[in-house]
Amino acid sequence: MLNFLAIDAGGTSTRAVILDSAGHCLGYGTAGGGNPVSRGFEPALDALCEASREALGDVPRTLSGALVAMAGASLELPSHLYGPRFISLGLIGEVVIESDLLAAFYSGTYQDDGRALIAGTGAVGARISGSRLAEVADGTGWLLGDEGSGFWLGREVARAVASALDGRGRATALTALVLTELGIADDPGTRSQGRFRTQQQLILKVYERSSIEVSRFAPMVFAVKDDAVAKDIIERAADALARTLLAVSRTAEVGEAGGAVTGEAGAPPLVFGGSVLTKGGSVAAGVVDRLAASAGSVVSPVLVGDGVVGAAVMVLKRHGIDVDAAIFARIQGTLAGLRG
Amino acid sequence: MLNFLAIDAGGTSTRAVILDSAGHCLGYGTAGGGNPVSRGFEPALDALCEASREALGDVPRTLSGALVAMAGASLELPSHLYGPRFISLGLIGEVVIESDLLAAFYSGTYQDDGRALIAGTGAVGARISGSRLAEVADGTGWLLGDEGSGFWLGREVARAVASALDGRGRATALTALVLTELGIADDPGTRSQGRFRTQQQLILKVYERSSIEVSRFAPMVFAVKDDAVAKDIIERAADALARTLLAVSRTAEVGEAGGAVTGEAGAPPLVFGGSVLTKGGSVAAGVVDRLAASAGSVVSPVLVGDGVVGAAVMVLKRHGIDVDAAIFARIQGTLAGLRG
Repeated sequence: MLNFLAIDAGGTSTRAVILDSAGHCLGYGTAGGGNPVSRGFEPALDALCEASREALGDVPRTLSGALVAMAGASLELPSHLYGPRFISLGLIGEVVIESDLLAAFYSGTYQDDGRALIAGTGAVGARISGSRLAEVADGTGWLLGDEGSGFWLGREVARAVASALDGRGRATALTALVLTELGIADDPGTRSQGRFRTQQQLILKVYERSSIEVSRFAPMVFAVKDDAVAKDIIERAADALARTLLAVSRTAEVGEAGGAVTGEAGAPPLVFGGSVLTKGGSVAAGVVDRLAASAGSVVSPVLVGDGVVGAAVMVLKRHGIDVDAAIFARIQGTLAGLRG
Repeated sequence: MLNFLAIDAGGTSTRAVILDSAGHCLGYGTAGGGNPVSRGFEPALDALCEASREALGDVPRTLSGALVAMAGASLELPSHLYGPRFISLGLIGEVVIESDLLAAFYSGTYQDDGRALIAGTGAVGARISGSRLAEVADGTGWLLGDEGSGFWLGREVARAVASALDGRGRATALTALVLTELGIADDPGTRSQGRFRTQQQLILKVYERSSIEVSRFAPMVFAVKDDAVAKDIIERAADALARTLLAVSRTAEVGEAGGAVTGEAGAPPLVFGGSVLTKGGSVAAGVVDRLAASAGSVVSPVLVGDGVVGAAVMVLKRHGIDVDAAIFARIQGTLAGLRG
């Protein structure tokens, strides 16, 4: 039985799994960020090797092939430099780089046609056809889009609070959460040069950090109860994410798998990934409602936590193995056992 | 007759004027950015001196006082360091730092009560009472707010184009303008890894520059005709700016000057400044409509181009001179003559 290496290389963490051609996961390891774009080429490669070594443990193995899933896989990465570093790990085959979007999709299904919607720090939708990315929408980054993502939610929270503090916007329970998070004592009614001191503190605290850090306010929209401002942000996130998914669902023709806006048994699968969809239940529910309204039928997405199962599925498929329901279930089950 | 120095120190340019206590402007000069926060303390001070020297020309004068208007005037600037640099220019009095918001306000009126709404790169509203900033709303910067500002408009244009390119949003004439501006050849229908190549180019071109540079797309919303997407952006900018102005208009009590939402003769003045309001006529008109609807009466803002007239008004007021309609008109008229 041949052995393979599959890696899910994220911006902040990397997951590696060793598996055989029947889908038995034999070892699992993790490391820091493995994306060469965000982390730099050498540090990223180090992380991939570290996670792989942990997955191998003390057992020497011959690896017939390796697959690395990462964002920016479409970029011109010097992927030929990956191979030599993996030889010492037992790799005799080649290293293939694949899209993290495909890895997320295949973490929820072994089928080659369907759709994926990912909303983590960024947000992107894709239609997969014949195992390739046929259509991609959004994923345009924090300034141009990523609408409904964690950054987007966090920024909307920060803006809503800034707006509530000077009376442009409605009062919201988010204000207390944000002020506490930033260590700002609320000082209602006190102004300096016409500006409320509390707002002045908010401005100072937010701009002294990197803008991406507003993402940490995102979970607050789910923490407050019966807050009209938070509900409005959640609704707008669901609107945006539904639009993103519908944008990759429109051009599918009758009879083409992956086109229909459903996730029912027999229908092409719909995979949801990223913390906003998997942990922020109300956003996912809002997207499902909108899709169902648009499709006129029930939509049942599969939620996935990360892309390591998908990387494993892809490395087998790349080596001609017909990943069926049994092998897919075996990958999921044995990996879950290794991850504890 | 005493002479004074008044400076309007902006982020990218600085204006200085020498005037006498009757409001006759005697000399005018300009230089680069004079804001110590954005430019650094010494380079900013150099710019102030350069503009002042140009305003003085070859005529030696004794300056009884100086006033510098700038953003961030509420910050703890080492303003005592300004004085020594101005002594060689003939200054015998002190240097006062004032808010650029007050300078914009006083560029449109000599009265001490009213409101100002400024939408340039940033956006801020203020109520002035007894010559001081009584209430300030927004001006919270590009990440937290500045809603309806040039940056905000430019970002909305960029987002609308990114969204139109992958079918999430409506098609818009803004797309052609943005692609031309960025030197991107439109390549409709061609995809790479599922993403339209034209959108991929947009992403690369936008993120290779500083995010503030999306501001340059702002004028495009006024350039396209009969475009629903551009109109929607303009409407939302007007909504946001009206909210900002109303936020500083609400707490005014009956009988307190500066409270009423009007700019009619006899009513407290309303000053509009910044390129979005002074050059983008449709945004200003939209704000006026919304204010009128809210106040139930006609609203007539005074448009001001920059803050140099206001700095001149303030330096006279600071030295006990009662700036009336005649002196105000004299400052405006003689300065316009010097500026050509």
